[in-house]
Amino acid sequence: MQKQRIAIIGAGPSGLAALRAFESAERAGAAIPEIVCYEKQDDWGGQWNYSWRTGIDQYGEPVHSSMYRNLWSNAPKEALEFAEYTFDKHFGRPISSYPPREVLWDYIDGRLRSSNARDKVQFATAARWVQYNEATDTFTVTVEDLKTRTTSSSEFDRVIVATGHFAYPNVPSFEGIETFPGSVEHAHDFRGAEMLADKRVLMIGSSYSAEDIGVQAYKMGARSVTLSYRSKALGHDWPQGMEELPLVQRIEGNSVHFINGEVREFDSIVMCTGYIHKYPFLPSQLAIDSPNNVYPSGLYRGVVWQENPKLYYLGAQDQWFTFNMFDAQAWYVRDLILGRTALPSVQDRAAHIESWSKRFSELSCVDDEVRFQADYIRDLIENSDYPMFDLDSVVEIFIAWQRDKAENVLTYRDKQYRSVMTGTMSARHHTPWMRELDDSLQRYLSQPEKDEIAKMLDDEDVTESIRAN
Amino acid sequence: MQKQRIAIIGAGPSGLAALRAFESAERAGAAIPEIVCYEKQDDWGGQWNYSWRTGIDQYGEPVHSSMYRNLWSNAPKEALEFAEYTFDKHFGRPISSYPPREVLWDYIDGRLRSSNARDKVQFATAARWVQYNEATDTFTVTVEDLKTRTTSSSEFDRVIVATGHFAYPNVPSFEGIETFPGSVEHAHDFRGAEMLADKRVLMIGSSYSAEDIGVQAYKMGARSVTLSYRSKALGHDWPQGMEELPLVQRIEGNSVHFINGEVREFDSIVMCTGYIHKYPFLPSQLAIDSPNNVYPSGLYRGVVWQENPKLYYLGAQDQWFTFNMFDAQAWYVRDLILGRTALPSVQDRAAHIESWSKRFSELSCVDDEVRFQADYIRDLIENSDYPMFDLDSVVEIFIAWQRDKAENVLTYRDKQYRSVMTGTMSARHHTPWMRELDDSLQRYLSQPEKDEIAKMLDDEDVTESIRAN
Repeated sequence: MQKQRIAIIGAGPSGLAALRAFESAERAGAAIPEIVCYEKQDDWGGQWNYSWRTGIDQYGEPVHSSMYRNLWSNAPKEALEFAEYTFDKHFGRPISSYPPREVLWDYIDGRLRSSNARDKVQFATAARWVQYNEATDTFTVTVEDLKTRTTSSSEFDRVIVATGHFAYPNVPSFEGIETFPGSVEHAHDFRGAEMLADKRVLMIGSSYSAEDIGVQAYKMGARSVTLSYRSKALGHDWPQGMEELPLVQRIEGNSVHFINGEVREFDSIVMCTGYIHKYPFLPSQLAIDSPNNVYPSGLYRGVVWQENPKLYYLGAQDQWFTFNMFDAQAWYVRDLILGRTALPSVQDRAAHIESWSKRFSELSCVDDEVRFQADYIRDLIENSDYPMFDLDSVVEIFIAWQRDKAENVLTYRDKQYRSVMTGTMSARHHTPWMRELDDSLQRYLSQPEKDEIAKMLDDEDVTESIRAN
Repeated sequence: MQKQRIAIIGAGPSGLAALRAFESAERAGAAIPEIVCYEKQDDWGGQWNYSWRTGIDQYGEPVHSSMYRNLWSNAPKEALEFAEYTFDKHFGRPISSYPPREVLWDYIDGRLRSSNARDKVQFATAARWVQYNEATDTFTVTVEDLKTRTTSSSEFDRVIVATGHFAYPNVPSFEGIETFPGSVEHAHDFRGAEMLADKRVLMIGSSYSAEDIGVQAYKMGARSVTLSYRSKALGHDWPQGMEELPLVQRIEGNSVHFINGEVREFDSIVMCTGYIHKYPFLPSQLAIDSPNNVYPSGLYRGVVWQENPKLYYLGAQDQWFTFNMFDAQAWYVRDLILGRTALPSVQDRAAHIESWSKRFSELSCVDDEVRFQADYIRDLIENSDYPMFDLDSVVEIFIAWQRDKAENVLTYRDKQYRSVMTGTMSARHHTPWMRELDDSLQRYLSQPEKDEIAKMLDDEDVTESIRAN
């Protein structure tokens, strides 16, 4: 039998999980299929591969990453830790629970740095069109080498879609928005809050982007930060200068009218209005068409395209769990491909989907969603040799994290959590997050003099705002 | 014989010219092919279909238009007038030589408003993939209906690519650009200069976008405007507050170092660095791969794809002439498709390309390029029934226009030109461009009271800056 050929589209955290899953089987002596991973960026890491670019990139492609310069993890790293490549293993010593972006990129890169995974990735290569051929039960994948501007097609037995779903912004319109003279950008194009200093900033949205970019704007000296919610306020104990208002009704120049009758003037608008599932390289028969939720329809075990089970998705769920969930998915998909685990019949898959959909439809609060996702991951890990980990304790971490944020959204990143993988307690970071203006890996891993920290904490106005909350 | 099927991709000025060309033949009693025009925006007009959006649009597609709120034509309308639908005919009275964007959209829309052209356009539909089938000598065109997110494919005998080449920005990088804390955007994403008031603005580039956006920023009160050129300064007699410097060497925070050793601080960077030919829906065998110039390679008579003469491009040239050039191209392509004019053999086409390429390679100045393009259009019109017009006089208009700008870049839009189509002298506009802050069609076509204008002209500081130049 000819060797199977597998296409992986995307080398972000999900695509890298797939590469790692196959590499791990290969290291253990298994024969693995021929793998080609297409990545449109020049390096791997997906969202974590930061770029100063916005809109359209150097090749004319939509910029993938929604990362901004100063982003720090907004949930404890203990909730995303790989079960088979721990933070202790990578850094050799405890680090804090909320690392900045470069540190997280280093962690996911580190797992594959010394493997042969990079040889399987064609960088600067965009998927253009995927076609399923009934006669041969194969896929023709057409890609463009963005550096030579050459398109080419090849045949694959299976396709793993790992392009993520936080790359194409959802950008609603509001009456009169075309009259707003200040900057209007989606969180996807937000690259740093320095330019928001002294500005009156409106964040449209009340989910993670709004909260995090809002706090970042506050940290960088915005004159005011207003978050506009559609259904429910976050309700944090906001510092002075931050507030929540309901939905925008209309915009007239710099004036924004809210549905409760309030009117405010703004200099800048950041749309934190989420992302859409978008797969411009897939025919609609193969493409997810779902809102962003923890159980998008059409997928068996959240990864197998029910209509064509040789097509897989990784990371297509809304995410509480991230890196370790992608691993659980990738290991399971790998085992399906290697024939180590059997794909149930179409009816059995439908029944499985039906039962999980029912449970999904009954979720009534955030904690329920987290538990649902933990159970979902457990179900996957039980079907592969990925190391099982204490999912219930991770659920507790998520619950505690939300409590921390509600208490003080400016200081929650200074809290410490214990790894469920190693039992290691995270380090206390040398500098409170609100005082740290250097987000680099180098600074993060450095040991600044005690005097420097003390001096920083003496600076009253910022310290006050931290303590006040 | 079955009716031919023609796909037109894009309903901007070029695609509309193609629709008009066929409509004009149909009105004259000819049988025309079945035409389907795919337009990814919700309305036609291409670049002239202004949107407040930047980056990615409401459907997850790259925003097409590079238009900004306050854009006025930057060349006399007498140079772009349709030979078979004049400004006099559309507006019923003389208007000024430099209308704002809404007025120009109205003009191109007006030509087709009462025709059946709109029935042939599928709006909110993006071309996904075009495949040429050797066996049947047809093209399979796959598109996505962006509203229903449904993909579908159909067969066509010919394909006209009219997607333009000012939609995908060329965005170079500069050492240290990731450390710049202010806004960095390409002209493609520039929507208005209000937010540049009091800012120190760097325009990277020295072509039309840099000149026009730079002047717009000046008009809106930028603290300073610096244009950075690669090869040659524009050399205008700039007003105080505007200057030209050579290429950027590196960026360090807000400080920008130029290759001549100068260093300046900036708050905002606008990249006016041009656009790339980009056709993500075409295999590379069918796609133009050329810099932006007046004679892109691979095209016979600038419109017929030499490698596959059933594929056409409209408007693929760098443009002095615009709307009337697209007409000349569309009429010629129409006549090829209708069999009214014969396509020469591949060798004869190659010889024609060779001779024009040679002439193109010998062009040594801007005026040469304008004359080259005039001759190119003449060659097209001589091969169809599009009304010939006085191309030499239009060349003179272009030359005079450049002189006007060099004399005073703030007032050149107040100059008047005579139509070569109707002989009509343009109107003197009611308000000098530098004083006009309302760019709407309504305001443009209104007759403000004399007092209002006089009062406006009394406002000394602006008037001074106009007179000073």
